[in-house]
Amino acid sequence: MNDFTLIFAPVAGIIGLIFAALLAKKILKSDSGTDRMKEISNYIHEGAMAFLTREYRTLAVFIAVVFLVLGLFISWTTAICFVIGAVFSILAGYFGMQVATKANCRTANAARTSQNKALEIAFSSGAVMGMSVVGLGLLGVGLLYYIIRDANIITGFGLGASSIALFARVGGGIYTKAADVGADLVGKVEAGIPEDDPRNPAVIADNVGDNVGDVAGMGADLFESYVGSIISTLTLGAVLYKTGEGVAFSLTLASIGIIASIIGSLMVKGNERSNPQKALMNGTYISGLIVIISSGILSKMIFNNLNAFYAVTAGILVGIVIGQLTEMYTSADYKYVKRIAQQSETGPATTIISGFSVGMYSTVLPIFFIAVAVLISFFVMGGTANASDVLSGLFGISLAALGMLSTTGMTVAVDAYGPVADNAGGIAEMAELPHEVRKITDTLDSVGNTTAAIGKGFAIGSAALTALALFASYSQAVGLKSIDLLSPVTLIGVLLGGAVPYLFAALAMDAVGKAANHMIEEVRRQFKEIPGLMEGKAKPEYGKCVDISTAAALKEMVLPGVLAVVVPIAAGLLLGPEALGGLIAGAVVSGVLVAIFMANSGGAWDNAKKYIETGEHGGKGSFAHKAAVVGDTVGDPFKDTAGPAMNILIKLMTIVSLVFAPLFVKFGGVLISLFK
Amino acid sequence: MNDFTLIFAPVAGIIGLIFAALLAKKILKSDSGTDRMKEISNYIHEGAMAFLTREYRTLAVFIAVVFLVLGLFISWTTAICFVIGAVFSILAGYFGMQVATKANCRTANAARTSQNKALEIAFSSGAVMGMSVVGLGLLGVGLLYYIIRDANIITGFGLGASSIALFARVGGGIYTKAADVGADLVGKVEAGIPEDDPRNPAVIADNVGDNVGDVAGMGADLFESYVGSIISTLTLGAVLYKTGEGVAFSLTLASIGIIASIIGSLMVKGNERSNPQKALMNGTYISGLIVIISSGILSKMIFNNLNAFYAVTAGILVGIVIGQLTEMYTSADYKYVKRIAQQSETGPATTIISGFSVGMYSTVLPIFFIAVAVLISFFVMGGTANASDVLSGLFGISLAALGMLSTTGMTVAVDAYGPVADNAGGIAEMAELPHEVRKITDTLDSVGNTTAAIGKGFAIGSAALTALALFASYSQAVGLKSIDLLSPVTLIGVLLGGAVPYLFAALAMDAVGKAANHMIEEVRRQFKEIPGLMEGKAKPEYGKCVDISTAAALKEMVLPGVLAVVVPIAAGLLLGPEALGGLIAGAVVSGVLVAIFMANSGGAWDNAKKYIETGEHGGKGSFAHKAAVVGDTVGDPFKDTAGPAMNILIKLMTIVSLVFAPLFVKFGGVLISLFK
Repeated sequence: MNDFTLIFAPVAGIIGLIFAALLAKKILKSDSGTDRMKEISNYIHEGAMAFLTREYRTLAVFIAVVFLVLGLFISWTTAICFVIGAVFSILAGYFGMQVATKANCRTANAARTSQNKALEIAFSSGAVMGMSVVGLGLLGVGLLYYIIRDANIITGFGLGASSIALFARVGGGIYTKAADVGADLVGKVEAGIPEDDPRNPAVIADNVGDNVGDVAGMGADLFESYVGSIISTLTLGAVLYKTGEGVAFSLTLASIGIIASIIGSLMVKGNERSNPQKALMNGTYISGLIVIISSGILSKMIFNNLNAFYAVTAGILVGIVIGQLTEMYTSADYKYVKRIAQQSETGPATTIISGFSVGMYSTVLPIFFIAVAVLISFFVMGGTANASDVLSGLFGISLAALGMLSTTGMTVAVDAYGPVADNAGGIAEMAELPHEVRKITDTLDSVGNTTAAIGKGFAIGSAALTALALFASYSQAVGLKSIDLLSPVTLIGVLLGGAVPYLFAALAMDAVGKAANHMIEEVRRQFKEIPGLMEGKAKPEYGKCVDISTAAALKEMVLPGVLAVVVPIAAGLLLGPEALGGLIAGAVVSGVLVAIFMANSGGAWDNAKKYIETGEHGGKGSFAHKAAVVGDTVGDPFKDTAGPAMNILIKLMTIVSLVFAPLFVKFGGVLISLFK
Repeated sequence: MNDFTLIFAPVAGIIGLIFAALLAKKILKSDSGTDRMKEISNYIHEGAMAFLTREYRTLAVFIAVVFLVLGLFISWTTAICFVIGAVFSILAGYFGMQVATKANCRTANAARTSQNKALEIAFSSGAVMGMSVVGLGLLGVGLLYYIIRDANIITGFGLGASSIALFARVGGGIYTKAADVGADLVGKVEAGIPEDDPRNPAVIADNVGDNVGDVAGMGADLFESYVGSIISTLTLGAVLYKTGEGVAFSLTLASIGIIASIIGSLMVKGNERSNPQKALMNGTYISGLIVIISSGILSKMIFNNLNAFYAVTAGILVGIVIGQLTEMYTSADYKYVKRIAQQSETGPATTIISGFSVGMYSTVLPIFFIAVAVLISFFVMGGTANASDVLSGLFGISLAALGMLSTTGMTVAVDAYGPVADNAGGIAEMAELPHEVRKITDTLDSVGNTTAAIGKGFAIGSAALTALALFASYSQAVGLKSIDLLSPVTLIGVLLGGAVPYLFAALAMDAVGKAANHMIEEVRRQFKEIPGLMEGKAKPEYGKCVDISTAAALKEMVLPGVLAVVVPIAAGLLLGPEALGGLIAGAVVSGVLVAIFMANSGGAWDNAKKYIETGEHGGKGSFAHKAAVVGDTVGDPFKDTAGPAMNILIKLMTIVSLVFAPLFVKFGGVLISLFK
């Protein structure tokens, strides 16, 4: 390896960012519509930016504290890497949100003339987010590695990315669901006004929520997975290949992934009559194919065999399979959602039970395929039961994760496109544009729901593989040759770790409940106290609802966020590195299961409701529909708050353990030593 | 050790059975009330016995198949032990049910004159079940060990107990919930007749369900835990102490446990005004105290130190703590249930979300205390990280499980008393006894609900410890010195194992849904087609509803039951012993979490509904009450079918692995060897 190969990564990162900037410029140049549209878009933009600003202010305290702790106990270089990681994650979210909240009215405006143009703007906005994520991610890791040349230290960058991701996901998830429930329960149910009606005081908060939850939250989630998978290949690859092949392969593949994502996103072109989903999937498949082919060439060039190629391909294919499985369990085209809709005929209890059962059932195949990816990637890289070969195998697992995540730019683009289309629909409604406009945005939005479900499945799968890869890195960092399940400390680690996702999910759901209650009260108050509101003669105080969601989200995200950081550190110090290994493994397994279960239950309930609304089982307003609405409401915090937060929880816990590993080696296991 | 100590266990078992027989005789001598009461009791008795007979007939096929497989692939002695274990489990269920279904009308009759006399009969009936369980359990294990002198072979007895337990729990759980839902949804909701009304065609099936679910199901569950914990101490103790101290301590402690349970049950005496719960708890505490003190003396005598005493005591105390925690999360005296009731004011969605969150939250402390018990019992017995000492520590864990389960006789008695009181109330209603009688049975029943919740918590805790102890035995049986989480096969084992409880729960809930649908149709049909039914002029066809529940339960229990047996065998053969170790660990952790979560969510919803029915939040018929009823209906399959079945699933998977261990050592890992 020479310095030349190392320069690829930061350069590719910069190319990604330039591409994002060009797209952003193109979006901003397009027409943003009528004054009314601009006004509404402005409300959303300001609400979203106000939330981000206040969120970042809260996070600054957290960043400062962790910076000091890292500096004092680990190393100041790690501490600086941490801050850079946090800032880069914030920047990615900031760029993405800036554009997304300006693209919404432009998408709505384009929909006045052409579905294809609307798709182009919405997707380009998603691509800005996607390219910002991968551009900043690879630039950060690549540059820091180029300078420091120590993979263990740049784990700090991953920690920064992870902690911001957690707060963004949890905070965004609480925000969006509090606003959603408030808008729906009081506006739609109590006041009887339609979705996205401008008389609803929570309508702007609801639209802001789509952005902070689905754009910024998802972006930060995948930024973390992306960075984590690269870091894991670097830490393991550096130990395994002293002459640098491991590092060279990882960074070059990641660089190719960015180029592949750019090409893929350029391929997203439809015409007026084609299905937008086809265009999006085409782009995804093309970028995946480019990475697969390139990884074959790279693997042959660098390692002189195809083993790394097999591992990478296993990761990419399993990522696609999990995405498809997610669609199967959550789309009304398949029997699962249809069964829930049918069960809604006997009331909400059977809706809940059947959705619950679908969610639990849906964990099996994704877990199976993750296991297949682990098995294949481990053994093809030459891993065996011998301690000396284990490392090769673990490197294989990290390559599978890297493969799955190499096209993150494209994945995020497809995913972040959804909320923009959704927002565009809201603006069309509020600005009272003709019905045909709303129909186009509805088409784009419904495709967005499918891609969001696939994206969620992908996020979980990649989080699982990344966490496992980082788990492998952790074992190296603490110098454990084995983590033995027959040792009681490992066993209790696994037990306690398994319970963490449950605690976390409970906290997240309670937080949504509390925040939603505040919102409900405020919306009720406005309907009661503002004269002429229902008649459309007075304007509601949108800002107050935005403030309530913001304040509640920021307050309620702290406890779960701190928990995810403190638990692994406490476990490492009190019970020792082996127990912490068990804890991570337990948390990963339990967290992945809870994540899939909650995301898919929620998605299935959502689509069962939509399916009934198409006229099945009595259609809108029927007994079955009322039951399905209950399912959908239960599913909201499942799929948009607690479920996706699991991905970050398991990665964050793992990377905290990895970064603080030196501490555990020196001081770990205080409590256990008392017993001896 | 000499033969003399070995004779204790079977003798204590026989003493337990004699005590059960005396109690049964006393119950049967008491007056069974009016002709109408006898008639109703007879319906229930016949329905329950018909179910058991048909269940056993189905199981005979399963027993025959497994007998052949064991004989051909393991050993014929193991196969014979298996059949004896299965038959003993069946006998325990049969005795208990015979008496319970005859004690119900006698309890109702006693309640006509005295609460105390009613308590005595209901509790005595529970004690017959309890003493049959421990008597047959210890007689079986003790006698087989006396004859065979090889702990590894009598694991077959445990397998027999476990497989019957699974079918009894799952079958009973499906039966009782199908009947319950059918009776409630059509009778109470659609026809508007009260609970336990004789005009309801499903009312007998509902009362039968209480017996087959809560008496036979729970009895088989704890029979399995009890036998499993003894077998685990024997297998580990025999390896660890070549001169027999381990075996002597285990069997003697189990013998003392039976005597302690007899003494405890004799202490359950109240007077007319005292709280029946106090009497029940007194008996429980006294039997626990006797075992604790005796274990100190035994420990000093046999091992010449108090280490075993500490391990046993840790198990007993943690068992009690988990029971209390369960009460805290599921009783309306605490904030959790009150919060669910309060959230019901905003409709069923918030009821579900808050109950869900309570259930998830409630997993943390029980898991923590199980971890504490593991840690203490491992280290006090001298376990260290050295491979040579690990065995001592693992023996400590099995002692903690044994301690927790030593007073199983008393635990089952307290638990099985509930459904008898419940049935007595049903008979009082159907036979139109005076209101005061129903009031007394209601008091007894509500105490029964609390003890049932505590019993469920205890069943989960003991299942977790027993499974961990058996897991330790398994590692010995396959000769694994370590089960390494860094090995990919272990890792995928843990992943796949974690998903099994989810699959199992989904299957169980679907089964309830399907069975309930059949029942709903049948009840609707009878209301429509039998003239004069609603006016009380014609009798419903109770038998048809009993048949439907029976047939559905038997049909639907097969797939989950077979799954629990086939999955570990397939994993062992395809992926090898280490992967299977991971699979067990993953299944245990995930299964315990799902079990606690589902049982406590269900219990909390149930009591939130009852709390509202006392007049809070608008009382019966209010909006909040309707929402709470939805929660309760969702909770039913959670707490009575899927949740409790987890206990057995994890134990059964572990004991299957243990029994088939020789096979995996010889042929395990076919699939993995392809990769090498």
